[in-house]
Amino acid sequence: MASLDSLYDRDYPPGLSEDRLFSLVSQIKDWQINHGSLLKQVDSETENSVLSYPVGVSCFPSPLPRAQFEQALELQETYNKLYCSISEDDEWIYEAIKDIIAVEPLAEALWGIYEAAKDAGYAQDISAGVFRSDYMFHLREDHDAASADRWAGLSKTTLKQVEFNSFSCSGFSHANKAANMHRHLARIGVYDMDDKPFPVDSLPENHNINSVASILALAHKKYGPPKSKLASRTAILFIVQPYNFNIADERPIEYALWNQDDVVPNYRLDFPDILEYTQLTKDRALLFHPPWLASKKPVEISVVYQRAGYEAGEYNKTGWDARLQLEKSTAIKCPSVLGHLTTFKKVQQALTEPGALERFLSPSEVARIRETFVPVHRLDESTEGLEARRIACDPKRSTNYILKPSLEGGGNNVYGNAIPAFLNSTPSSHWSKYILMEKIHPPDADNLLIGSACLDGGQTVSELGVLGCCLWQRTTAKKSGTRCDMLQNSAGGWTFKTKFADIDEMSVVKGYGCFDTPYLVDF
Amino acid sequence: MASLDSLYDRDYPPGLSEDRLFSLVSQIKDWQINHGSLLKQVDSETENSVLSYPVGVSCFPSPLPRAQFEQALELQETYNKLYCSISEDDEWIYEAIKDIIAVEPLAEALWGIYEAAKDAGYAQDISAGVFRSDYMFHLREDHDAASADRWAGLSKTTLKQVEFNSFSCSGFSHANKAANMHRHLARIGVYDMDDKPFPVDSLPENHNINSVASILALAHKKYGPPKSKLASRTAILFIVQPYNFNIADERPIEYALWNQDDVVPNYRLDFPDILEYTQLTKDRALLFHPPWLASKKPVEISVVYQRAGYEAGEYNKTGWDARLQLEKSTAIKCPSVLGHLTTFKKVQQALTEPGALERFLSPSEVARIRETFVPVHRLDESTEGLEARRIACDPKRSTNYILKPSLEGGGNNVYGNAIPAFLNSTPSSHWSKYILMEKIHPPDADNLLIGSACLDGGQTVSELGVLGCCLWQRTTAKKSGTRCDMLQNSAGGWTFKTKFADIDEMSVVKGYGCFDTPYLVDF
Repeated sequence: MASLDSLYDRDYPPGLSEDRLFSLVSQIKDWQINHGSLLKQVDSETENSVLSYPVGVSCFPSPLPRAQFEQALELQETYNKLYCSISEDDEWIYEAIKDIIAVEPLAEALWGIYEAAKDAGYAQDISAGVFRSDYMFHLREDHDAASADRWAGLSKTTLKQVEFNSFSCSGFSHANKAANMHRHLARIGVYDMDDKPFPVDSLPENHNINSVASILALAHKKYGPPKSKLASRTAILFIVQPYNFNIADERPIEYALWNQDDVVPNYRLDFPDILEYTQLTKDRALLFHPPWLASKKPVEISVVYQRAGYEAGEYNKTGWDARLQLEKSTAIKCPSVLGHLTTFKKVQQALTEPGALERFLSPSEVARIRETFVPVHRLDESTEGLEARRIACDPKRSTNYILKPSLEGGGNNVYGNAIPAFLNSTPSSHWSKYILMEKIHPPDADNLLIGSACLDGGQTVSELGVLGCCLWQRTTAKKSGTRCDMLQNSAGGWTFKTKFADIDEMSVVKGYGCFDTPYLVDF
Repeated sequence: MASLDSLYDRDYPPGLSEDRLFSLVSQIKDWQINHGSLLKQVDSETENSVLSYPVGVSCFPSPLPRAQFEQALELQETYNKLYCSISEDDEWIYEAIKDIIAVEPLAEALWGIYEAAKDAGYAQDISAGVFRSDYMFHLREDHDAASADRWAGLSKTTLKQVEFNSFSCSGFSHANKAANMHRHLARIGVYDMDDKPFPVDSLPENHNINSVASILALAHKKYGPPKSKLASRTAILFIVQPYNFNIADERPIEYALWNQDDVVPNYRLDFPDILEYTQLTKDRALLFHPPWLASKKPVEISVVYQRAGYEAGEYNKTGWDARLQLEKSTAIKCPSVLGHLTTFKKVQQALTEPGALERFLSPSEVARIRETFVPVHRLDESTEGLEARRIACDPKRSTNYILKPSLEGGGNNVYGNAIPAFLNSTPSSHWSKYILMEKIHPPDADNLLIGSACLDGGQTVSELGVLGCCLWQRTTAKKSGTRCDMLQNSAGGWTFKTKFADIDEMSVVKGYGCFDTPYLVDF
C-alpha cells in the first residue's frame, strides 16, 4: 500500500535513461504480442493471415487516490440498480428522450422497435447488463492551483461522472490485459528506482474478463433448458460487427465462457446476418442455425450479448427487423432495447433534473449518486434550455463546457470554444439532441504513452470506468421505487484510460487514449 | 481415445463447406492473435510499435499412431542420458568431430573455446539441457504401397529419428500454444461432423512452456545463493539474438519463470553484448550489470540459457571471448560448449557406428535407441566414406538420401537428386563435413495448412519432436558407461510440425512448416 509519505519516488514517474527506456518499451511490446493486447491492422486481413499491432498503453501506472477508486467501485451497485430500474420504466425513458426521437435516427429506430416488441408482448422478463460508469477526478475549489506539488493536487480531487454506458461497452478485456502487464512489469522490477522497489500491491488486480463471462454465464443458467424440442442445446449469442478489428477485446470473453468448469457454449453472429441464421419458434424461442455449425440441429439462444447495433446506419429494414426479432425472443437480452436507450446522453441529463433520482433510489442513495454529477444542461426550448443555449453560443462562457450528442461513444463531442461555431452550422431544430456538460478539471499528471501513433511523454488526464454486472427481473410497475428485482448486482472490475491533456478525445482504438492501471495512493 | 474402428470419420480431415472453412480460419486467426501464436513482421518494429502475424498452423490435428507417440516420449529419458553422457566425454566428441574442425568455422570456434575453458579449469560441474529429438514415421517394408487406405498405412509405421538437437532448441512455446488452440477448436465443436463429436481426448495436452521453465528453475535452485558479495541476488540469463522476430517462442518461458510460486528472476542479454554487461569475479561468479537494471548492485547469474550463438558468424573475436566468459563462469550452462557440440550431425552419424552406443548405454537401452536410427553415412575418405561418396554422386542412388551439413537446423540440407550437382560444386576436401542420411518414407497424409504464405490443402508430412529436460553432474571419467549423474531427466513435452510433402524444408519461421497437434489413433 502506497501512501504519500512512503511514496517510493516523489518524482514519479521517474525520468529513465535511454537504456532503461529502450528496455521498458521492448518489454511492453513483447508482452503485448504474447498476451493479445493487440488490434488488428484495418484492411490487413486475408483468408490466410492478418497483421496486428499493440494497443496503446501507458508506460507507467498513473497515480490515483485510493479513496476515490474505492468510492467508484462501491457506487457501482447503486448505479446498476438505478439503470436497471430505468430500463424497466418506459414512461420515464420516453419523457427523457422524446425530443430526440424525431431528430436522432438511432433513437427513432430503437423506440420503434421497443413499441413493436411491446405490442407483440415481451416473452422474457429477465435482462442482463454489462455497464461501464466513467469518471474523471475533478480538482476541488479549495485547491491552490498555484501549488507546484502534483501530489497535493491529486489529494484534492472529487469523483465526477463523465458518462454512463449501458450498451456494447468495450475495453474490458484490454483493461484486464493492461493491468496484468503493469503488474508484471512492476513485479519484475522495471519501475524500481535505485534499490527502492515499486509498491506492486498498489496496483489493483483486474478480473474484467471473468466478471463479464460470469454474468453472461449466470444469465445462461437462469434461462434454463431449451424450450424448443427442435434445439439440441442452449448457447449464448454474441452479436458483433463484421470484420471487427478489435477482436482482442471481444474474444477473451468467449474463451472464458468455453473455459468455465461448467462450459457455456457461445457463438458469434454478425449483426447484418441475424435474420438469415436465426428464427423464432411460435413460442418465441430464438433458434440459431448457421451453416458453419457441425450439428444439423439448431441451437437455442439463451442470452443475446450485444456488441453491435449501436450505430444508426445499422438499422436499415433488415437491421430493424433483426433487432426486433431478438427483442421478441425468449432469450435474455444483454441488454434489452429499453436498456439500450438508457445509454443516451439525454438520460444522463434527465437524471440531473430535480427529483429524477428520487423516483428510483432512496434518499441516501440519491445523495451519493448526485455527488458524482457535474452540471448538465438540456439544450431545448425550455427556460433552462434557452439559458444553456446562451452559454453554448457565447465564445467565452462556452470554454468551460462540452457539447455531447446523444450518440454512443465520445467521438462526436464538441469541446469548449468550438461549440458556438458548431451550433451556428447546425439547424437549431436539431440542437435539442445535444446536452451541454460542464468540463471536469483534473489535476496535473504526466506519463509516457506508447501506441501506434508515438512514444511520447507529457501532461496526461485519466478516466476510470467501473464495470457493472447485473441480472434483473421486471416486477409489476410501481409509481416510484425500483421496478425490478436485482438477481445479481456487482462491480466486476474497471478500465483506466489515459491520454495527453491537450487532446480532447479518449478513444483508444483511434490511438488517442491508452490503457493504464491506477497506482493507488493513500492521502 | 480414438481407435481405428471408432474413428469418428474415416474421411478425416473432413471436406468443409465454404462457410465452415471461413468460420474455422477466422477462429484460428483470432485465437492466435489473442494467445500470442505470432511472429513479428521482420523490419516492422519501431520504438513505439511493431506488426505481427499468426505463425503457420495446421487447420486440423494430423493423425498419428498413439503407440509411436508414446514410444518417442518413453525413449526420451534414454536419449537424454546418452547426450548428457556424450557432453561429458571430450575424447569421444573430438573423435566424432575432428574431421570438421578444420573446415567448419563453428566447430573450430566451439572446440577452441572448450579447450580454453578446460585449460582455465571448469568452475561448475553441473549442466542443464533442453533437448529436442525429432522423429518421422517410416512406412514399414511390409506395407502394401498400393493400398488406398491411408489408415492402414499409418498403422504400419516405425519411429525413425531425423536429428537430435541439444542447443538453442526452438518451437516449444509455439507448439504449446498450437496444442492449446487445436484442443480449444475441438472442444468448441468445429471438428465435429454432423452430430459425431471429434474425440477431444485424442489430442494430448502440452506443457512445454512450464517444462522448460521448470528445468531452468531447478538449475537456478541448485546453483544456490550468490557466491559473490557484490551481487544482490541470483537470476537466470537468457542469451538471445538481437531483434529476434520469434519473441513469442522465447518470452513465454521468461514469463513462466516470473510467474512461478517461487519467483525466478530472469533477464535477456543479446549475444553481442555479453562482454559489455557481464564480468567474472576472481572466483568466476558471472555478474550481470546492464544499465537498464534499476539496482546499482549487479545480479549474479545462476543459469545461462542459450538461445543464440549457433551461427559461425556470431563468433568474431568478441563473440568468442564472450562465450568463453560464460563457459568459464560458475553459472550452470544450458548447455555447455561440449553439450553444444553434441548437436552436430557428425555426432549423430558417429552414434550409428558399430559399438558407439555401447560406450554410453546398457544393451537393452542400445537396442531401443538403435531401432530409431536410419542408415547414416560419413562422407570422408574411409572405406565406408568412399562408398557413401559413390552413392551421393550417383544421380539414381542419391534420390533416396539427404545430404546434411553439420550446422544447426535443417535449412542447409540438400535433397535427393540435387546432391550430385551440389557435391560437384563443392571442393572434395570439404565433403567430410557432410553426412549422408537415408530418407524416411512416411505414409500418405493430408491436411489444410494456414500461414503467412497461403491457406491450402494437400499431401502432408509430419515431424514429432520430443522435449528433453535434464540436469546432470559430471562424475570422474570412466572408460565406458555414464559419465554423469542425472539430477533430473524427463520428457517435458513435444512439438509436432506438418508441411506439404512436396517441400523439403520443415522451417516454420520461413513459412514452410506449420505447428500441428497429433490426433492419436489406436491401431
